[in-house]
Amino acid sequence: MRENDFLAWITAQTPAHPRVAVGIGDDMGVVRPGGGAGEAGGEGVAGVLLKIDQCLDRVHYDLRRHSAAEAGRKAVNRCLSDCAGMACVPAAVMVAVTLPRNGEGSGEAFAKDLFLACRDAAAAFDCPLVGGDTATWDGPLAITVAAMGEMPGGTGGKGAAPVLRSGARAGDTLFVSGRLGGSILGRHLTFEPRIRLARALAEALGTGDGGGLHALMDVSDGLAQDMPRLCAASGVGAEVYAGRLPIHPDAERLAGQDGMPAGLHALADGEDYELLMAVDPEAVPELIGVAEHGAGRGVGLTAIGTVTAGGGLALVDERGGRHGWPRAGWEHRSAG
Amino acid sequence: MRENDFLAWITAQTPAHPRVAVGIGDDMGVVRPGGGAGEAGGEGVAGVLLKIDQCLDRVHYDLRRHSAAEAGRKAVNRCLSDCAGMACVPAAVMVAVTLPRNGEGSGEAFAKDLFLACRDAAAAFDCPLVGGDTATWDGPLAITVAAMGEMPGGTGGKGAAPVLRSGARAGDTLFVSGRLGGSILGRHLTFEPRIRLARALAEALGTGDGGGLHALMDVSDGLAQDMPRLCAASGVGAEVYAGRLPIHPDAERLAGQDGMPAGLHALADGEDYELLMAVDPEAVPELIGVAEHGAGRGVGLTAIGTVTAGGGLALVDERGGRHGWPRAGWEHRSAG
Repeated sequence: MRENDFLAWITAQTPAHPRVAVGIGDDMGVVRPGGGAGEAGGEGVAGVLLKIDQCLDRVHYDLRRHSAAEAGRKAVNRCLSDCAGMACVPAAVMVAVTLPRNGEGSGEAFAKDLFLACRDAAAAFDCPLVGGDTATWDGPLAITVAAMGEMPGGTGGKGAAPVLRSGARAGDTLFVSGRLGGSILGRHLTFEPRIRLARALAEALGTGDGGGLHALMDVSDGLAQDMPRLCAASGVGAEVYAGRLPIHPDAERLAGQDGMPAGLHALADGEDYELLMAVDPEAVPELIGVAEHGAGRGVGLTAIGTVTAGGGLALVDERGGRHGWPRAGWEHRSAG
Repeated sequence: MRENDFLAWITAQTPAHPRVAVGIGDDMGVVRPGGGAGEAGGEGVAGVLLKIDQCLDRVHYDLRRHSAAEAGRKAVNRCLSDCAGMACVPAAVMVAVTLPRNGEGSGEAFAKDLFLACRDAAAAFDCPLVGGDTATWDGPLAITVAAMGEMPGGTGGKGAAPVLRSGARAGDTLFVSGRLGGSILGRHLTFEPRIRLARALAEALGTGDGGGLHALMDVSDGLAQDMPRLCAASGVGAEVYAGRLPIHPDAERLAGQDGMPAGLHALADGEDYELLMAVDPEAVPELIGVAEHGAGRGVGLTAIGTVTAGGGLALVDERGGRHGWPRAGWEHRSAG
């Protein structure tokens, strides 16, 4: 059973609960404060956003080649990237570390370097570390990070509602941040979670009812896998223009090494940690403002397609030909 | 470096932050809502309580002898026991599972049983599962649970402030719930987190300024280790009456097997998941009410000693003789 199928099974086994505004299946869960009755905050409070994520030796990094600092930074930044995927602000992180008794990842110096890297990755977003757990065992290093996020600006501000995967509407323009593909060459360890960009977009375009930022998620498993997730959550289809995909130079480099098309790397590689979003066409001018003069400067925002009312997902070539969606994707393949 | 020393080092490396009301070192962290400025909730809101905790094969259970359901239930209940240790209500849990590719803990049926046990353990406290992460690797099974807790009753209610380890005062009476020792014979898998008892005590005695429940924690590593933690956090000493320790029949059974005194098992074994508390002597009548007519019925609350202004910790024998505090304790010893 693949991870996707298992998560779908879990979702089906998880009943609705009055506390839960958004359950398993989005970038983060959203818990209503005050037991779901709104006592502690009243109407319109977005609630507390929560996420848990693992980062494992020989899966997400390889301690034969990567340092404690690289592993710790990646573990925290993966979780913070999910905060970006909801357009929330990380309010706190917790880190649980299972340390090997012997071999790669053992020893006090390693543990200290790892902790400091986790702390500093969170601090880069003014996010405190409020909980930790360490244990030693005969298995490999596992780092599990949990993040709590909040929506800034209280109840009234523009961009105060978290942005779900489920809000895309037919006619929306699909944008992706940055450039995609080839992150295995190193970016999977050094990426910057797009929190500032997500907040800038939320504030400029607006979120929730009447907002222009309809749907948002982080691209962690590759566009080939993540685009179908956004479409499924929203009950829509999509046309993506293959020629418009922003291809990272790393994807070109990797293509030069393995002979695969760079565009396929951009679609399927995963671990981009960029943002995928569906935007109301009327809000595109505000998006361009963020891209050219705001937090998107130096990152880039590229229109890659259009949301359709149905008909599944299609890749459209430069002559207008429709192609089936590639099935390739990254699902916990070893970090090479 | 032992776990205690590493956590002390981590605490020293973690700077204060306006969002953090209670940082690493108590049963849970406490995060102020609204970025620490109180915008989202105003004065008196206790904040969001957070905890992360790991539960590992061959450390906390042994899949050669224990089932997926036992491991999953224990993993969640350990985290919920920390909620009891703050007298909060669990509002949401998240579960990250690292599944072995082969051997004990592998396979789809195991993963499903594990998930259902986690879900049901939380549901027993009306607590929803709002996030999950699964991965497969070549290491053993690791289950990491993060819990979010809330204080019920809004800002005005009695018992609305979380109960920290740091509130014990000289003259307080020390109580422990249930009976201690020998949990390795099976209770470490089947214990009930004392959430209802903790809430009943918080509401009957009051918490925070003017409340009678001064300090609280869950006893997870054994009284021998956990009592010094409560005293250190509060800057106090304690006299514990050795003859008053509530010894579990399992501690007697274990004593019969290994020849150690049952009282030493009660002090040092760990994994009791009972509550240790420091109570204002004036609030003892309310505590007795909870013990005899409330959530403490069938659990028991035993006065085991007194908080002192200083002088460290002492075990007092039945003739009044003072003995040094036993150093023994449970620190991630393998589940036998």
